[in-house]
Amino acid sequence: VDHVANGFDPTDVLRDFDWGRTRRLASGRVLREWEVFAGDKEIEVAPGVTFPAWVFNGRVPGPTLRCREGELLRVRFVNGSRHPHTMHFHGVHPSAMDGVPGQGAGVIPSGGSTTYEFEAEPFGLHLYHCHVSPLAEHIARGLYGTFIVDPRDGRPDADELVMVQHGYNTTFDGEGNQLYAVNGIPFHYMHEPVRVRRGELIRIYLVNALEYDPINTFHLHGNFFHYFPTGTSLQPIEFTDTVMQAQAQRGICELRFPNAGAFMFHAHKTEFAELGWMGMFEVS
Amino acid sequence: VDHVANGFDPTDVLRDFDWGRTRRLASGRVLREWEVFAGDKEIEVAPGVTFPAWVFNGRVPGPTLRCREGELLRVRFVNGSRHPHTMHFHGVHPSAMDGVPGQGAGVIPSGGSTTYEFEAEPFGLHLYHCHVSPLAEHIARGLYGTFIVDPRDGRPDADELVMVQHGYNTTFDGEGNQLYAVNGIPFHYMHEPVRVRRGELIRIYLVNALEYDPINTFHLHGNFFHYFPTGTSLQPIEFTDTVMQAQAQRGICELRFPNAGAFMFHAHKTEFAELGWMGMFEVS
Amino acid sequence: VDHVANGFDPTDVLRDFDWGRTRRLASGRVLREWEVFAGDKEIEVAPGVTFPAWVFNGRVPGPTLRCREGELLRVRFVNGSRHPHTMHFHGVHPSAMDGVPGQGAGVIPSGGSTTYEFEAEPFGLHLYHCHVSPLAEHIARGLYGTFIVDPRDGRPDADELVMVQHGYNTTFDGEGNQLYAVNGIPFHYMHEPVRVRRGELIRIYLVNALEYDPINTFHLHGNFFHYFPTGTSLQPIEFTDTVMQAQAQRGICELRFPNAGAFMFHAHKTEFAELGWMGMFEVS
Ligand SMILES: [Cu+2]
Ligand SMILES: [Cu+2]
Ligand SMILES: [Cu+2]
Ligand SMILES: [Cu+2]
Ligand SMILES: [Cu+2]
Ligand SMILES: [Cu+2]
Ligand code: NA
Ligand code: NA
Ligand code: NA
Ligand code: NA
Ligand code: NA
Ligand code: NA
Ligand SMILES: [Zn+2]
Ligand SMILES: [Zn+2]
Ligand SMILES: [Zn+2]
Ligand SMILES: [Zn+2]
Ligand SMILES: [Zn+2]
Ligand SMILES: [Zn+2]
Ligand SMILES: [Zn+2]
Ligand SMILES: [Zn+2]
Ligand SMILES: [Zn+2]
Repeated sequence: VDHVANGFDPTDVLRDFDWGRTRRLASGRVLREWEVFAGDKEIEVAPGVTFPAWVFNGRVPGPTLRCREGELLRVRFVNGSRHPHTMHFHGVHPSAMDGVPGQGAGVIPSGGSTTYEFEAEPFGLHLYHCHVSPLAEHIARGLYGTFIVDPRDGRPDADELVMVQHGYNTTFDGEGNQLYAVNGIPFHYMHEPVRVRRGELIRIYLVNALEYDPINTFHLHGNFFHYFPTGTSLQPIEFTDTVMQAQAQRGICELRFPNAGAFMFHAHKTEFAELGWMGMFEVS
Repeated sequence: VDHVANGFDPTDVLRDFDWGRTRRLASGRVLREWEVFAGDKEIEVAPGVTFPAWVFNGRVPGPTLRCREGELLRVRFVNGSRHPHTMHFHGVHPSAMDGVPGQGAGVIPSGGSTTYEFEAEPFGLHLYHCHVSPLAEHIARGLYGTFIVDPRDGRPDADELVMVQHGYNTTFDGEGNQLYAVNGIPFHYMHEPVRVRRGELIRIYLVNALEYDPINTFHLHGNFFHYFPTGTSLQPIEFTDTVMQAQAQRGICELRFPNAGAFMFHAHKTEFAELGWMGMFEVS
Repeated sequence: VDHVANGFDPTDVLRDFDWGRTRRLASGRVLREWEVFAGDKEIEVAPGVTFPAWVFNGRVPGPTLRCREGELLRVRFVNGSRHPHTMHFHGVHPSAMDGVPGQGAGVIPSGGSTTYEFEAEPFGLHLYHCHVSPLAEHIARGLYGTFIVDPRDGRPDADELVMVQHGYNTTFDGEGNQLYAVNGIPFHYMHEPVRVRRGELIRIYLVNALEYDPINTFHLHGNFFHYFPTGTSLQPIEFTDTVMQAQAQRGICELRFPNAGAFMFHAHKTEFAELGWMGMFEVS
């Protein structure tokens, strides 16, 4: 797969947090701003296999937008795709900023733009996606990304990773997916393992954006993690090696590897694993 | 859709709690009694589309039976349908009162009747449904409803809403659903939003009665809720905007809307949403 | 179904814990050892219906391997099947002991053997299964079993039961299952109920090994249980009568029956229930 032609590399996506630009308002409050462009793009998803994706900022998944609880957020959205789109954020915001048809700026036509403005709340792990009908296709084509609101006092230092679970319905039959991936490219982390340090705290922001299939799961080999569903509590709910997420569910996994070596991670829906949703940690 | 001909309106179903009739026994204990009739009924589920439902008290979903922990409950069940049925309650009760074939009164034939009697326990959000074979069809035809056992000391005052997630297999192929709904009619709350007050505590009794599909999800736009699975604890387990339920799972969502306006809620299984499982809150 | 010819009886599987053999090392530490054989075996899964299973120690599910936190474990694995296999354990261990292709001994060919050695951690309810490709088939043919690590100080005394949820894809189409079961034989506990005592603490080790279908559920009639997901905490997460598990999820259910009598348990995915995933408790 030609990552340069694709314009993104899943290895970089892992630790690529888009903090936007900030300035302090007269009130002392932080204003954080991003620009997000929707576009149409052929992505090489497997050697020689291209998928006509709809993308935010040229990537599948879109950029990981990250901010801090209580900030004022402004997202300038420019629709450079030939199709109408929106950005709908999971989080608390006024209905005019909901990024759905019929509210506020509503559907943004090809060539149009708008600005979504709202407060960063609640802290946790959220997501955004297009909300135009047919909704399944607008999501399945690639229009989703991670939205992280850090707690006011932050979280403990860690090697932080974003993992967005998703798929490609390469037949466009709207019935399922023929390829499954984490961060854009099926099997990517089998060839290029996720490199981490033994004993170091690792925090995975795990998001399920999978369309069509009812659930997704994440299993880690040879280790366990603490799971924080939606990331809205600082107390974990479970210590496990396998979690399930429906579409739009997400959670934080915290772990340390006690042993060096190579450890698989994959959907324990084996169909998904064998069609691309598997990878390796390389612990040194 | 002609709600009058159907005999029920999803807007009314939201806040329609059937407390039955009560009297105090010599022991001082409260006896609570209901009469529930099974019947066969054509329901207009979409404009011009009728579904030959099997119904409890003329509705899909059946009546929301509500009581208080520790009461003695008596449910007079009369089967006016042409098919055999039962009422099986989720909750604690003797096996003779389980409403399944071969225990107690067993299957109640067309024209037959029985009385189920048991204590109200444990407090929480439960359900009831027919338990006659073929089980999938007896549920899918519409024979399910909500069963709420209030804690002995109640819950905090709130605007309380019942939302039963379900579907219609209009082809009767037993393979899936062609329409999805909350409280009986697909898309109903898109046309007639759920009206609530800004800042007021809202408590949603969310039940998944969906047949055939493996899971269902509930997502709320522009807001988050505390989730109490099965309603059996007064402490929430999660603060989120998306929950997943398998059939017969249920949970309480508590929230306040900080902003006025119109906010969608829908299954984040987008297939279900686009086939009817979506609605709006109108917050004023 | 001829349990003698099959070589195992689901009634025995319920309470059959394989503790292996132990001896104390010079350090004072306990070494616990098992021998596990993979083989090929025709199993009568329904009257007159045989399934060409791949089995650990002659059973579907494989033996319930049980140990205590902190022990040193040694599993001698001998592959007597005509197919290559491994034993992959859920739990914490070095990558060379992970039982996957390319790590340590890797894939064990027909006639080969290896020894997996690792520490028993963390305490909880885990599982093991073959990890050879095609992974879905190597699991679906029957190569899975329960792995219990007791807490250092044990759990309260109880009548302990193992229930492994699984299925048989008798058409080998890799698309789903035509039969569903707990502990090997569809409908077994309908004919031979699980006998338990009224008022006694019952602890169910519930594991979902189901291949192909996205989720599984366990529902108990007439009673509720405390649920400990993955068994890694001594505090339950929920009090309910219905839980959902994706493949490889597992949890402990603790309950007492207040009433004598016969109570069903079944998947509340009614399709699974009607194809074999149902049974009875007989409480006396
Ligand atoms: Cu959307
Ligand atoms: Cu594993
Ligand atoms: Cu039933
Ligand atoms: Cu949303
Ligand atoms: Cu495996
Ligand atoms: Cu039940
Ligand atoms: Na906000
Ligand atoms: Na697929
Ligand atoms: Na009761
Ligand atoms: Na459907
Ligand atoms: Na270990
Ligand atoms: Na099936
Ligand atoms: Zn779009
Ligand atoms: Zn694995
Ligand atoms: Zn969403
Ligand atoms: Zn019925
Ligand atoms: Zn939405
Ligand atoms: Zn039920
Ligand atoms: Zn194998
Ligand atoms: Zn049942
Ligand atoms: Zn596994």
